[in-house]
Amino acid sequence: MTYEVKSLNEECGLFGVWGHPEAARLTYFGLHALQHRGQEGAGIISNDNGKLKGHRDLGLLSEVFRDEKHLEKLTGQAAIGHVRYATAGSASIDNVQPFLFNFYDGQLGLCHNGNLTNTRTLKRELESKGAIFHSNSDTEILMHLIRRGFSTNLMDNVKSALNTVKGGFAYLLMTDDKIIAALDPNGFRPLSIGQLTNGAYVIASETCALDVVGATFVQDVLPGQVVTIDAKGVHVDTYTTDVDMKICSMEFIYFARPDSNINGVNIHTARKNMGRLLAKENPHIEADIVVGVPNSSLSAASGFAEESGLPYEMGLVKNQYIQRTFIQPTQELREQGVRMKLSGVRSVVAGKRVVMVDDSIVRGTTSKRIVKLLKEAGAAEVHVVIASPPLAYPCFYGIDIQTRQELIAANHTVPEINEIIGSDSLHFLSIDGLKDAIGLGDQICTSYFDGIYPTPLYDYEHDYNLGLKEKVSFY
Amino acid sequence: MTYEVKSLNEECGLFGVWGHPEAARLTYFGLHALQHRGQEGAGIISNDNGKLKGHRDLGLLSEVFRDEKHLEKLTGQAAIGHVRYATAGSASIDNVQPFLFNFYDGQLGLCHNGNLTNTRTLKRELESKGAIFHSNSDTEILMHLIRRGFSTNLMDNVKSALNTVKGGFAYLLMTDDKIIAALDPNGFRPLSIGQLTNGAYVIASETCALDVVGATFVQDVLPGQVVTIDAKGVHVDTYTTDVDMKICSMEFIYFARPDSNINGVNIHTARKNMGRLLAKENPHIEADIVVGVPNSSLSAASGFAEESGLPYEMGLVKNQYIQRTFIQPTQELREQGVRMKLSGVRSVVAGKRVVMVDDSIVRGTTSKRIVKLLKEAGAAEVHVVIASPPLAYPCFYGIDIQTRQELIAANHTVPEINEIIGSDSLHFLSIDGLKDAIGLGDQICTSYFDGIYPTPLYDYEHDYNLGLKEKVSFY
Amino acid sequence: MTYEVKSLNEECGLFGVWGHPEAARLTYFGLHALQHRGQEGAGIISNDNGKLKGHRDLGLLSEVFRDEKHLEKLTGQAAIGHVRYATAGSASIDNVQPFLFNFYDGQLGLCHNGNLTNTRTLKRELESKGAIFHSNSDTEILMHLIRRGFSTNLMDNVKSALNTVKGGFAYLLMTDDKIIAALDPNGFRPLSIGQLTNGAYVIASETCALDVVGATFVQDVLPGQVVTIDAKGVHVDTYTTDVDMKICSMEFIYFARPDSNINGVNIHTARKNMGRLLAKENPHIEADIVVGVPNSSLSAASGFAEESGLPYEMGLVKNQYIQRTFIQPTQELREQGVRMKLSGVRSVVAGKRVVMVDDSIVRGTTSKRIVKLLKEAGAAEVHVVIASPPLAYPCFYGIDIQTRQELIAANHTVPEINEIIGSDSLHFLSIDGLKDAIGLGDQICTSYFDGIYPTPLYDYEHDYNLGLKEKVSFY
Amino acid sequence: MTYEVKSLNEECGLFGVWGHPEAARLTYFGLHALQHRGQEGAGIISNDNGKLKGHRDLGLLSEVFRDEKHLEKLTGQAAIGHVRYATAGSASIDNVQPFLFNFYDGQLGLCHNGNLTNTRTLKRELESKGAIFHSNSDTEILMHLIRRGFSTNLMDNVKSALNTVKGGFAYLLMTDDKIIAALDPNGFRPLSIGQLTNGAYVIASETCALDVVGATFVQDVLPGQVVTIDAKGVHVDTYTTDVDMKICSMEFIYFARPDSNINGVNIHTARKNMGRLLAKENPHIEADIVVGVPNSSLSAASGFAEESGLPYEMGLVKNQYIQRTFIQPTQELREQGVRMKLSGVRSVVAGKRVVMVDDSIVRGTTSKRIVKLLKEAGAAEVHVVIASPPLAYPCFYGIDIQTRQELIAANHTVPEINEIIGSDSLHFLSIDGLKDAIGLGDQICTSYFDGIYPTPLYDYEHDYNLGLKEKVSFY
Repeated sequence: MTYEVKSLNEECGLFGVWGHPEAARLTYFGLHALQHRGQEGAGIISNDNGKLKGHRDLGLLSEVFRDEKHLEKLTGQAAIGHVRYATAGSASIDNVQPFLFNFYDGQLGLCHNGNLTNTRTLKRELESKGAIFHSNSDTEILMHLIRRGFSTNLMDNVKSALNTVKGGFAYLLMTDDKIIAALDPNGFRPLSIGQLTNGAYVIASETCALDVVGATFVQDVLPGQVVTIDAKGVHVDTYTTDVDMKICSMEFIYFARPDSNINGVNIHTARKNMGRLLAKENPHIEADIVVGVPNSSLSAASGFAEESGLPYEMGLVKNQYIQRTFIQPTQELREQGVRMKLSGVRSVVAGKRVVMVDDSIVRGTTSKRIVKLLKEAGAAEVHVVIASPPLAYPCFYGIDIQTRQELIAANHTVPEINEIIGSDSLHFLSIDGLKDAIGLGDQICTSYFDGIYPTPLYDYEHDYNLGLKEKVSFY
Repeated sequence: MTYEVKSLNEECGLFGVWGHPEAARLTYFGLHALQHRGQEGAGIISNDNGKLKGHRDLGLLSEVFRDEKHLEKLTGQAAIGHVRYATAGSASIDNVQPFLFNFYDGQLGLCHNGNLTNTRTLKRELESKGAIFHSNSDTEILMHLIRRGFSTNLMDNVKSALNTVKGGFAYLLMTDDKIIAALDPNGFRPLSIGQLTNGAYVIASETCALDVVGATFVQDVLPGQVVTIDAKGVHVDTYTTDVDMKICSMEFIYFARPDSNINGVNIHTARKNMGRLLAKENPHIEADIVVGVPNSSLSAASGFAEESGLPYEMGLVKNQYIQRTFIQPTQELREQGVRMKLSGVRSVVAGKRVVMVDDSIVRGTTSKRIVKLLKEAGAAEVHVVIASPPLAYPCFYGIDIQTRQELIAANHTVPEINEIIGSDSLHFLSIDGLKDAIGLGDQICTSYFDGIYPTPLYDYEHDYNLGLKEKVSFY
Repeated sequence: MTYEVKSLNEECGLFGVWGHPEAARLTYFGLHALQHRGQEGAGIISNDNGKLKGHRDLGLLSEVFRDEKHLEKLTGQAAIGHVRYATAGSASIDNVQPFLFNFYDGQLGLCHNGNLTNTRTLKRELESKGAIFHSNSDTEILMHLIRRGFSTNLMDNVKSALNTVKGGFAYLLMTDDKIIAALDPNGFRPLSIGQLTNGAYVIASETCALDVVGATFVQDVLPGQVVTIDAKGVHVDTYTTDVDMKICSMEFIYFARPDSNINGVNIHTARKNMGRLLAKENPHIEADIVVGVPNSSLSAASGFAEESGLPYEMGLVKNQYIQRTFIQPTQELREQGVRMKLSGVRSVVAGKRVVMVDDSIVRGTTSKRIVKLLKEAGAAEVHVVIASPPLAYPCFYGIDIQTRQELIAANHTVPEINEIIGSDSLHFLSIDGLKDAIGLGDQICTSYFDGIYPTPLYDYEHDYNLGLKEKVSFY
Repeated sequence: MTYEVKSLNEECGLFGVWGHPEAARLTYFGLHALQHRGQEGAGIISNDNGKLKGHRDLGLLSEVFRDEKHLEKLTGQAAIGHVRYATAGSASIDNVQPFLFNFYDGQLGLCHNGNLTNTRTLKRELESKGAIFHSNSDTEILMHLIRRGFSTNLMDNVKSALNTVKGGFAYLLMTDDKIIAALDPNGFRPLSIGQLTNGAYVIASETCALDVVGATFVQDVLPGQVVTIDAKGVHVDTYTTDVDMKICSMEFIYFARPDSNINGVNIHTARKNMGRLLAKENPHIEADIVVGVPNSSLSAASGFAEESGLPYEMGLVKNQYIQRTFIQPTQELREQGVRMKLSGVRSVVAGKRVVMVDDSIVRGTTSKRIVKLLKEAGAAEVHVVIASPPLAYPCFYGIDIQTRQELIAANHTVPEINEIIGSDSLHFLSIDGLKDAIGLGDQICTSYFDGIYPTPLYDYEHDYNLGLKEKVSFY
């Protein structure tokens, strides 16, 4: 649909409703507001008086539900839904969620946002006991653990399973008479509860999805909580008290929609603060105009412009009609200057010293391309300012960066990167600046910047160290 | 693809190349930068050493050319292409351009941007002489006039035909050995020529398409000109000297891409000026923040913010994943607050007095919806400022507004509109302010605002007056 | 859809209804029975109280009308429809019929089955007078001739136009208040009228289409007739009296459906007779079983079996699931024996002397393949008997064979062909046998067999002779 | 694709190759010859030096593999494939086979033809031990049983699992280094092994698929056998010696392709024998012609014709262009006589006493429709002769008839059925006649006709008796 400037990718978005006659339809609209969290697949399971029905497929939400009939059959007063981001090679229908399990003693629906760190160990152990996995996703593991629980009480088995899986996770589980939501002990991924005017409860990965369906924010799901939503309302329980809130800072920097709030902090405002603090930390950049890289860096750019007193200009324009199926220019045409996604606005940047604001640098290739674009459009100088610290360490809790090799800042100094991307100067926000901008103190996870992980890495520890020059510190 | 906030629609975009081995492919990329000028159909005709081949279909460019094979077969060193906007009911493949005509004495390709004012008269006259029309478009008329010309010289017949058609038009005509481009005597529609590094010439409705393919701007096609592009280069001729430049002001206000220049004026800059002058003309609005309606009004909003000294905030977020095929909320869900395309950002606007900047008001229904959205998101006050004068008269030169009934400003005063859309105050830019912002003096057409048309209206004169309360003045 | 064993192709099927509330739907079902006459495109024009509406596209009927909505919008009490066969390279939507022409003084719909022999001359003459053609089809010519007629009376202009075009044609013309049907002076192509139980009239290329919609046969349209079907019923007129019935014999041999009747002769019965007479003419073939090539030769094979007293066996099975989109075996796999469309039944043919009955031989490649297949399945001998005479001359009246080069029998003797296709003996039906089998005497056209054409060849005469070793005799 | 005259449906077709560089492509072509055994889904798993890769989807083979790329990626020297018939409501991609299981200790592919009789019991037992099933199919059960086997040797666990499942089954299991094939102890479903000229082995549900890929028949898999095909060739083993061959007689009557052989008996020949014996058993039918219902009854009809001495005529024509997507006539149009799939040939049947030969009667609705069709086409009398005994009992081994309610012969006498379908007389083949025609004595299963089941019915026993008026006898 729209191209990704970044190679950073969030893993999935969740949405659920209990108590509305058009639950699946609301879920469809709610997922639509979460489409930026995953474009590779989508699905919805509805609950019609205890009977679960589902539809899921590869593609954007509008492709998966391309006909009214796909929604119409999902009758019932409750639903859970999922949009999925897939790592390369795993784009199979088998992995598209929510999964619907049919047991002789009932049906269960399940979907998941995040990444487990002990997947391999658990999977191997379960398989050696006869378990059969159909997908590559982490999600099935929870179901096997639940079904192999020793209790006759579902919630006991759910809690036990939640204590067995490690890493970053937000789960939605649909039974015949309730939705169960759970968050990992660090709360890496966001999950919020809202209420519709008819009293129905909704739950979503981001508050923008609550807004889109007209719901009022009620509360966030907190680390270690397991929440039941059913005909009696919302019931909050905990499966562990060993919690330590560490919300993923990349949600604030790049992933979440500007109109969402996470833990009470508005994303646009946080980003504007990042831009503002970036300007404060770098008062000596001599420039004429500030240009943001559309669309993710516009908030930070306007913050930078306000703080620095430089005019904020539209020096880059993004083509909104880029399609997944768009035929790409050949290498030869690309060399001849054919550019599809972003255009530099000559009349705006020609002869100007430009501050180019971007949210982050992953591999550096995109930054290099944009700097070149601005210079070809006549910019006299291009000073790149990044509204986050250098990305130097992988994430194991749900963002798709799992080796250091791909990260330019893991292998190069700032002056080297400046050289590589061809900018006239390059500046990153400090980790303290980032924390100040967000305003949640140490409740955010900054592992990608400092290599300090709030949890053991389990299965990743070995691989991870192989891919690194130096050892990172764990917890 | 993306939804239209406005019910204003431009009629089409043109692109042509002469002298590049991958002419059709370049045209594909060039048209892509013009996709905002028409989403209902697209096509390309290539010229392979005198043999013309074409492909066209309904849909977005990426749908029409969904496979490499569609481009691969369009071999040759020259090409012309078209993206089309279709008025309701005419969405037939028959109307998708460029048209490819096969005659015993050769082939001709033709495409068109604009609207003729004497279509009906000419069509009837030609049919009474045996002509058969296959499409509803104005475009075929020119071809019939050319083929019925009395000269044995094609260019003589083309010039004669160009003097017979009236209204707004930019044409691209492909013969076996050249591209012929022509613009109406008032230059209502833009058309610019550029050059690639290999020396090949390109021609496009907007300069942003020149940029995308890496071409350097050479010159604009001027009113009354007929330009030949062939192996010898660009040759400019005129078919009439009775010219009077009146560029469509809506190109500056709404249609054109911010990175395009028309007659040397950058669109983003003109819009920022509109916002600035709007702030100057309305110094007494008491407000806390400025919010632009994405995406078309962001330039004007930043101009307004800079001039007024108010902070520019992201109070509205547009969902970039809306698809043509997206299932819409039912009326009931809409009433329950389900909103798909735009979201108000509560954290930004709650409790604030908001200046909402939009580019224009057509029917008023969209403005009313956005005001409501902002108020529901907690805005204390919403002051609507419009970066153009009230739209009160139809256009007959290529914009799809042909009756006054649909225009709220044709039937209501500004205070009445303010009442209707629910804003706390409403302000429009003056016509003089608009002209100052653009900076081309009387060379722009402002008929939609003042009812003064620079040409006779021919076939529309009668209909037009029936639909109006008072007589408008013509030329 | 299904593969063609032959490279012989009929050009198109026609269907029309006047006087039924679901005229377009009936036309859809009627065309379905004519799908074997053309698989490349289809279309329907309906007449709703004088307002004509159409839908047409490339593909099979079920693809063109893939949604109910495509039929639903074609309201009205009358309709005409068309299925089209396209010669290679002309598979463009522009050529798909019926054509719908919109004039200031009314609408006209037109479709055509057959091939004109003076197309080039007429087209050139019309173009030199300013006419513009949009398709490559012959069909538009009639419309230009009608519109340029000198009379103010449509029927006068239609008759005049019918006298100007030459060759083989059946036309259906839809006006605001009637359907006009016309047949060429030799009646090369079939066209029959039927009546529904509600009194409505239907007209179709073959009687099987009358049967499918539950209509009773009323009469055939005869050479030189122009028939009007309207609210008053059927009115038969003539546009010429210079007529000479010469029905295409290939309709009986190969094209028409076995359940159709042409001029009172049932196709299955005629084919069975061909098989019977073939057996009579070749009494000395020593064999054990008779096998027909499915599906077109089963009638002839059963006739041969009955007459010869040999058992009729299913020695060849056709796979009914072959799709247009089916991936073909590579050359290498084909050599390894992978066969898709036809299978030889080993248990039936092994060790047997087989009489293989086919309807005709065009290039010989298919026959060669089937003989090989039977031998590989164990047939001791394969005697090929063809239920028609050797095809040695092209057709210019509507069958797609226009050069002699492609016809094996134009360039080889029967013993040579026997050698080439690898059969143990080869026998063709005589021309007299063919005439006897059909039973219409000299009222059938046998030009493909004897090179005697019942009309001048006009534009083809020159080309034609270039492609021939010896001159053929005309009329 | 093509419509089903019957509501009888086979459950699936299997194909496998070991030892050919284009194994997946061969499998594609082999499955194509088995498409009649299942049209709802298809899939292939290839084995590229131990790495298993798969592609499967809903739809016909040509839809599932609609692009070359779908086949290209399935590299490797071995492959197994499946075409699937789905019972109503279970048309989910989850059920499409072969299933590909990824375990930490290797990959396994599995597909299945048949129906287990102890599914419910096994599934419940496995689930109570933590097993999770993803599909509704029986197939997964075998995999769970294998994975939970106690041995460290795969083949031991396979044999043990094969002894646990009951009913009708043919399995293909792909490991990293072999294909394992197994057949149930009664051999209800056919399974044959062939060899290609390059020495590679192929295995298929029907021998017609061996022929299509150019393989020579080697041997049938026999009841109780488990066969290994690998680099060393074919190795036959047994998992049980408690066997009793009972090949499904419906394979001979209706399902299998006429060019297939089952246990050395050619299907076409068996059917012709059925027709012949039917004529012998009913010598007193006074009639003029014999007409077979296309396509399944043509063999039987020709046998009847030969034995009775009556001429065999094409009195019914099937439209070969019926598509799955074909819009059906409304009830009203149907009443007005619009018929789509079959046409009666008036010229052939009018005034004639017709013997209509069909293979079987399930609900009677189709027979009633065809009798009506023939009478409307003018048949003086219609004598229906059925080339099998009355279908009065359900099948539990792989044919989709599981209740007696739907079977007309379970609830009505022959005279009653004759009355219901409107025929002038009605005759069925006797069970002895059927056995004589096939020639395998008691090695065929005739439960549908006599209610004598060769095995216990396990889970079905209870349900089954509820749906029956009288108790049937088991083994």
